[in-house]
Amino acid sequence: MTAAPTKNGIVLLSGGIDSATCASIARAEGYGLYALSFSYGQRHRVELEAAKRVAEAVGVVEHRIVEIDLRAFGGSSLTSLSAVPKNRDLSAETGIPSTYVPARNTIFLSFALGWAEVLGIGDLFIGVNAIDYSGYPDCRPEFINAFQEMANLATKAAVEGRRIVIHTPLIDLTKAAIIRTGASLGLDYGRTHSCYDPTADGFACGACDSCIIRRKGFIEAGIEDPTRYGSE
Amino acid sequence: MTAAPTKNGIVLLSGGIDSATCASIARAEGYGLYALSFSYGQRHRVELEAAKRVAEAVGVVEHRIVEIDLRAFGGSSLTSLSAVPKNRDLSAETGIPSTYVPARNTIFLSFALGWAEVLGIGDLFIGVNAIDYSGYPDCRPEFINAFQEMANLATKAAVEGRRIVIHTPLIDLTKAAIIRTGASLGLDYGRTHSCYDPTADGFACGACDSCIIRRKGFIEAGIEDPTRYGSE
Repeated sequence: MTAAPTKNGIVLLSGGIDSATCASIARAEGYGLYALSFSYGQRHRVELEAAKRVAEAVGVVEHRIVEIDLRAFGGSSLTSLSAVPKNRDLSAETGIPSTYVPARNTIFLSFALGWAEVLGIGDLFIGVNAIDYSGYPDCRPEFINAFQEMANLATKAAVEGRRIVIHTPLIDLTKAAIIRTGASLGLDYGRTHSCYDPTADGFACGACDSCIIRRKGFIEAGIEDPTRYGSE
Repeated sequence: MTAAPTKNGIVLLSGGIDSATCASIARAEGYGLYALSFSYGQRHRVELEAAKRVAEAVGVVEHRIVEIDLRAFGGSSLTSLSAVPKNRDLSAETGIPSTYVPARNTIFLSFALGWAEVLGIGDLFIGVNAIDYSGYPDCRPEFINAFQEMANLATKAAVEGRRIVIHTPLIDLTKAAIIRTGASLGLDYGRTHSCYDPTADGFACGACDSCIIRRKGFIEAGIEDPTRYGSE
């Protein structure tokens, strides 16, 4: 018999490797999880199906998908019709790529903060990592620390003394280490989705930054990649 | 002939007295304004009509209304069917009221930050004030400062050196001082809306916190209140 969780957390769940592993770690630490996903006009909406599969596998208390239209502002190849870059050499210094979505993690964490307050939860989990992270500014520890600082001044809960803690269990892990961690916790990565530009039938392109990082991670972890690539 | 604005800003525009005055001040300082409003499931959606009227009067470059569903989380009498408190004695110590919407300003500012990055704008205006503010934690200067700190770590623009500044021209003003300032700039407060619980035909209730603060502000400013109250 499994004991009911005595502590609860909110996890941001995209359906990719990182957020799925982050959720698995939080569950293994005994948190009852409330998973939050966003339908934000991303061209790879198939990732929301992956988020549902992961939420089920991890065993969350509740999974909510919030609709927000980040396309209204534009500014990213992930939410527009402009091309997702392919076959880039990620070992070279390439700056912040066009797949960066302006203020995405800030917006996602803000919604998590609102839900946390309603649920009376102080622990938020986000699967950002500062290594193998594709150069996004809102994945860095200094951003997370600043958000936590702000969050503790933002809400009624914080004013009344219920401190917000943002957990980033993957922050210092390479993609290979993340995959080994998830595998050791029994996470089936066949349920996750990474590709920014999947085919109509849901196969990964194998060439976008996210596919390149994923493939390399499985190779370095020495674990078989369950991804179905469209080119195979 | 009016010179074209040489600097631009984003203003959060609810349609109430504070955001309308904030927008007027920013215009008077020479900013070209991009106004951002939210349809967030608020029961007083008539305020969005006020936001449109104010945007037109102030003369903004563009006005966008973003749909987000804060009702999904609940937690506030402003976005649910629970009653808006009426006829409270606001001079007494009453704590944070049920009309507080969890993380609202955090979420609104996060969207503004995303739009700012897309537009290449560094100046955000928000009409919060720490006096006569109905007790919301996310209207305090320490919250605004922490958000600005976080914002400057969150975005590609900030990483590349375009600093985000959050302007709060009303932060130290009483409601009466705000109204006098707007009136001196020619703002027609008949275009604004404050009531949390208006009648079906758009009249103000005269009894919610927002109506009480508004009424008191006009009296103290010695300026006639153009509001149409349903009880009259």
